[in-house]
Amino acid sequence: MDAKTPSESRTTMTDLVLPSETNPLNNLFGGELLARMDRAASIAARRHSRRITVTASVNHVAFNRAVPLGSVVTVEAAVSRAFKSSMEIYIDVWIEDRESGSRTKANEAIYTFVAVDETGRPVAVPPLKPETELEHQRFDAALRRKQLSLVLAGKMKPNDATELKALFTDN
Amino acid sequence: MDAKTPSESRTTMTDLVLPSETNPLNNLFGGELLARMDRAASIAARRHSRRITVTASVNHVAFNRAVPLGSVVTVEAAVSRAFKSSMEIYIDVWIEDRESGSRTKANEAIYTFVAVDETGRPVAVPPLKPETELEHQRFDAALRRKQLSLVLAGKMKPNDATELKALFTDN
Amino acid sequence: MDAKTPSESRTTMTDLVLPSETNPLNNLFGGELLARMDRAASIAARRHSRRITVTASVNHVAFNRAVPLGSVVTVEAAVSRAFKSSMEIYIDVWIEDRESGSRTKANEAIYTFVAVDETGRPVAVPPLKPETELEHQRFDAALRRKQLSLVLAGKMKPNDATELKALFTDN
Amino acid sequence: MDAKTPSESRTTMTDLVLPSETNPLNNLFGGELLARMDRAASIAARRHSRRITVTASVNHVAFNRAVPLGSVVTVEAAVSRAFKSSMEIYIDVWIEDRESGSRTKANEAIYTFVAVDETGRPVAVPPLKPETELEHQRFDAALRRKQLSLVLAGKMKPNDATELKALFTDN
Amino acid sequence: MDAKTPSESRTTMTDLVLPSETNPLNNLFGGELLARMDRAASIAARRHSRRITVTASVNHVAFNRAVPLGSVVTVEAAVSRAFKSSMEIYIDVWIEDRESGSRTKANEAIYTFVAVDETGRPVAVPPLKPETELEHQRFDAALRRKQLSLVLAGKMKPNDATELKALFTDN
Amino acid sequence: MDAKTPSESRTTMTDLVLPSETNPLNNLFGGELLARMDRAASIAARRHSRRITVTASVNHVAFNRAVPLGSVVTVEAAVSRAFKSSMEIYIDVWIEDRESGSRTKANEAIYTFVAVDETGRPVAVPPLKPETELEHQRFDAALRRKQLSLVLAGKMKPNDATELKALFTDN
Repeated sequence: MDAKTPSESRTTMTDLVLPSETNPLNNLFGGELLARMDRAASIAARRHSRRITVTASVNHVAFNRAVPLGSVVTVEAAVSRAFKSSMEIYIDVWIEDRESGSRTKANEAIYTFVAVDETGRPVAVPPLKPETELEHQRFDAALRRKQLSLVLAGKMKPNDATELKALFTDN
Repeated sequence: MDAKTPSESRTTMTDLVLPSETNPLNNLFGGELLARMDRAASIAARRHSRRITVTASVNHVAFNRAVPLGSVVTVEAAVSRAFKSSMEIYIDVWIEDRESGSRTKANEAIYTFVAVDETGRPVAVPPLKPETELEHQRFDAALRRKQLSLVLAGKMKPNDATELKALFTDN
Repeated sequence: MDAKTPSESRTTMTDLVLPSETNPLNNLFGGELLARMDRAASIAARRHSRRITVTASVNHVAFNRAVPLGSVVTVEAAVSRAFKSSMEIYIDVWIEDRESGSRTKANEAIYTFVAVDETGRPVAVPPLKPETELEHQRFDAALRRKQLSLVLAGKMKPNDATELKALFTDN
Repeated sequence: MDAKTPSESRTTMTDLVLPSETNPLNNLFGGELLARMDRAASIAARRHSRRITVTASVNHVAFNRAVPLGSVVTVEAAVSRAFKSSMEIYIDVWIEDRESGSRTKANEAIYTFVAVDETGRPVAVPPLKPETELEHQRFDAALRRKQLSLVLAGKMKPNDATELKALFTDN
Repeated sequence: MDAKTPSESRTTMTDLVLPSETNPLNNLFGGELLARMDRAASIAARRHSRRITVTASVNHVAFNRAVPLGSVVTVEAAVSRAFKSSMEIYIDVWIEDRESGSRTKANEAIYTFVAVDETGRPVAVPPLKPETELEHQRFDAALRRKQLSLVLAGKMKPNDATELKALFTDN
Repeated sequence: MDAKTPSESRTTMTDLVLPSETNPLNNLFGGELLARMDRAASIAARRHSRRITVTASVNHVAFNRAVPLGSVVTVEAAVSRAFKSSMEIYIDVWIEDRESGSRTKANEAIYTFVAVDETGRPVAVPPLKPETELEHQRFDAALRRKQLSLVLAGKMKPNDATELKALFTDN
């Protein structure tokens, strides 16, 4: 399969924060944002693989800024690295000030999706070919994240996670 | 403030998987489960702190098993460790077979919530006092997770993350 | 079929009152609470029967206390008596004060469910074996409620409703 | 206050059964129908009283016929009797066959609403003046239902429920 | 096929404006009203044709009055003219003042639906026979609207739109 | 106020067709698409005006292609012409084939929004400066559409609608 670039899977989902999605402080519920990011990421995974895709895991997500009722929120998702049948999706979330129009980064998130056939069995996906500098950084970090994920799940020995180990021993 | 046990915050949310929450394979959308877990975790955080609570971050979540349409899903959330104003919430998700009645673990997740006052400013929460062996394990691991989270966010040097470093250097 | 106890079907559904579920006084819509109770009761009926279950009727439900936006509401449902293919489900609804943590009974409700096969035809369910004193009271009252229901539907003559008749003539 | 007729409060809510409202047999969830009836009844109560109205209780509701996905469902609600600040609302539910156009009664339900002011305190409502024979029947039966409801709630002695008592002793 | 009158398809959908359907000014979102009108119109089209019906187009819709949260909104839809397999549906929207009970026209809209078989292919529908004066006016104007629609879609030459042309040249 | 280009307001909303949004043929309900387009258009109007914006009218919308369950749908909205306080928004809707990745135009729509202040009163908006050839075409046609809309609403005499009249008399 031919490699694809992140821009071939980039997905933009701009929408309003509706009254039914807010918590007692009148900000978007964390859970609603997690669901929106999941939908955007699943479309990016599908654009990369041209397959049915299912959420395999969610990496660490930090909610740095509250997103108030009525905000315009843009969720941008693109594949950051492809493995055999799984894809890491990097998601950036922006909120936009109505009066000034300035965009602020609300948070980032990383989801992993797996491509499956109609029976739910994993199938191979094309490799990813990063282009910009940011895409290269995210591509490289994806390997460390995968090792960390395998270590935490008890499927890889810390000693074998060479990329990750370096982080703690090289200084 | 007096310490509280995990059972004082334990929250059980049993509900059906409705048709509007399913993906093309007729299983619960990952994003919907993330939203349900967020609501259950926010109630647990609130029971521990008696405060308004907001999602601060979501730790690594793995979706190991598909949850089919019509399933009975139980989300159980309890505080696993309390820090100054933040609480780590450990969430177990079970699905139940209609015919045999047997329960299967669908997945686990870890969310962090912060207690805030009416203006959104962080406020102190009571410490957690684990009781069972499982609660003690989760309590201990919570510190490593916090260090990992600080390292990944660039707010702690890997060298200072003593608990975490041991994982990679002690073997 | 072996008898089952109410605790084998007891179902706990704790959730928040969301902004989309409130009336002009900012309290939970009666209709939304009826729908939540229906879902919890259908799970209890399913746990007792291990079958598909459908709502057959709703008994008198009184809404004694308003449930404000943002409340934590716990709906607890358990089978209170089983007949041939129908089950009476007793539902208790509690709301929880965020600051004190005290629980208040918001209301009680009684639903009847029927167990059916894949074609929608009624099938037999196990008998119920009450254990606690409250479970015995609810078990006994269920027979009077069934008679009342049959009388009101014109399917039983008032004279034959012996349990019910006693209520009006024994004093 | 001048008396009003049932037609002055009659409310018609015709709508489709949407995919998100169905159970595993592809029929409308009982709970969803309870919620729709609650909204229609609240509008009827409001048209009679010109006040904010809240659900006080739901009388016995029997679900006699399944309502399949895609059906056209008509919920008709009208005040059947008014007391001091409460109103009994009688609700008829019809489903319509797409091909023949024939209407079938799916079920009936009776809700009680209370009129309140902006602070939630009960306020007086106009009396009801029934016109048709069916409206007179429902008006008369409403008194027996109110007595039954008071007896079941322990707020009236069975002996004082003269209307109701006659039902069991006059034969 | 025998002609049908508009009253045979007239559909009344009275419902509340719920908190989840409002914009930042606390009025009903235009998009929500468009969706409600679409459901009511699809039922009217179905009552006229006794077929599955799908939205073909929406004519000019003007939103003249804001519809505040908590309003009672009545959407009335009826077939205004039938062509081969398509039907024009005329929709009137009313809002009702809670205190005075007076009804105000909020807006009008015109949708076109096509009757289809189970495979989605268009099928013939009965002609419409208008009765009242207003129904006759709407019936006549429907032809001009159809011509305008064909001209705007480039499927009819302006010169052939005789009805429409008269509007601009006869004065 | 400085003029703005269409790209300054262009809004992209890519999302899935969820099971709760489909009709009996398993395609997206027309009404749901109308609601999505309304949200995207309202964001475009807001980006152009930096104000609260409300839907004023919907122009003729044709639904040319069914949008099946599970599709990826992209709604693209941008201001096509600005008047005093109103803006015409042109919306293109695309669906994407999962296997080939090819995009097909599903339909186009034109909405008009008005910019208002916090009290709902219309306020002035910047003029639009079209750039591409397509943007120029849409800009020019917008004036004819505005005249047509005024004529149909009886607010302009056909004779004064010079742009529109030419369409019918110049051949």
